[in-house]
Amino acid sequence: MNSSVTRGRRPGTPDTRRQILDTARRRFLSNGYRATTVRGVAAEAGVDVALVSYYFGSKSGLFAASVTASANPAGTIARAVEGGLDGLPERVLGGVLALWDDPASGGPLVAMLGSIHDDPAVAERFREMLEHELLARVAMRLRGPDATLRAAAFCTQIAGIVVTRYVLRLRVVAAMSSDDVVRTFAPGLRATLLPSRPAATATRRS
Amino acid sequence: MNSSVTRGRRPGTPDTRRQILDTARRRFLSNGYRATTVRGVAAEAGVDVALVSYYFGSKSGLFAASVTASANPAGTIARAVEGGLDGLPERVLGGVLALWDDPASGGPLVAMLGSIHDDPAVAERFREMLEHELLARVAMRLRGPDATLRAAAFCTQIAGIVVTRYVLRLRVVAAMSSDDVVRTFAPGLRATLLPSRPAATATRRS
Repeated sequence: MNSSVTRGRRPGTPDTRRQILDTARRRFLSNGYRATTVRGVAAEAGVDVALVSYYFGSKSGLFAASVTASANPAGTIARAVEGGLDGLPERVLGGVLALWDDPASGGPLVAMLGSIHDDPAVAERFREMLEHELLARVAMRLRGPDATLRAAAFCTQIAGIVVTRYVLRLRVVAAMSSDDVVRTFAPGLRATLLPSRPAATATRRS
Repeated sequence: MNSSVTRGRRPGTPDTRRQILDTARRRFLSNGYRATTVRGVAAEAGVDVALVSYYFGSKSGLFAASVTASANPAGTIARAVEGGLDGLPERVLGGVLALWDDPASGGPLVAMLGSIHDDPAVAERFREMLEHELLARVAMRLRGPDATLRAAAFCTQIAGIVVTRYVLRLRVVAAMSSDDVVRTFAPGLRATLLPSRPAATATRRS
């Protein structure tokens, strides 16, 4: 039995953890996901590489934590999905723009997206985040037998905005102001949330 | 003056070109974009590497040609955009599914998308294809001052479907039948094509 409750003598301190995260975020941002190594981060932060593994498990774990340290994608999405369907497209668009337009969080997220083909764990993390944090939460708010499909279409449009604005950088989409983004994409998102079969709506309304 | 019109003695034949493309497509499909080299394709096809460069210029040129040899993305999109706004979402969705659901064309396209961060020429090629073949053609068919923004939103939704169905493989989206895709995504695409300001529609209709 190790006396894990003994005070002191823990591997590192909250400050150490923060310092690793700051270093990691800076390196992911400037060098990209693939060129950043756990070993390099440890060296620059002046800690043993085993300490980084202890805290974060793996490179993708370190990455996720370093993004989350400056932004909270899951929290942002959860807040946006709260509060009724009426302004849902606008709230989610606002959250997406807040996360991705800010270089501190958007830069690492773009770097992370770029590594999807190199690191299956990263693809899995994005898929998980979209499925659990956005798709499932939106689906719970919709009525009708195809609620999951419509929630999936909603997520797909959000994913499309991220890809064309921040990764492919389609000129028209990358140049849009926040207002343009909301004005341009809200109608499509709203149409997606409605039941696709008018009969179902009519039944509920009559 | 080289006698370029002299018969015969050309570097390779149409059969050689086809053979290079078949080899390239097979290697891109099985090894992915990054691991496939022009040199390796030349060796397997039994031709000099200079001949591959002569025909296709670069790796991304070889790639584009090897995809186009089995499918014609630009032609598929052009046909889909022809013929009025009414069935436009359905026709474009049909074209996208035909291209990407078929492993012969979809496999290489997914491999190509995965290399966007490694090869800026590939990102540029996707951006160009979306901007010139889809966005510009759709924008020409729309009325109103924000036609380009709405066409961009249309393209963004198409890009989103490609990403969630074929790259991220969100389970719900990847599992949809062709009919599900059309039924689920057409309403959002249609809403995006309409002028966002009801006043403009009212004026034209009254």
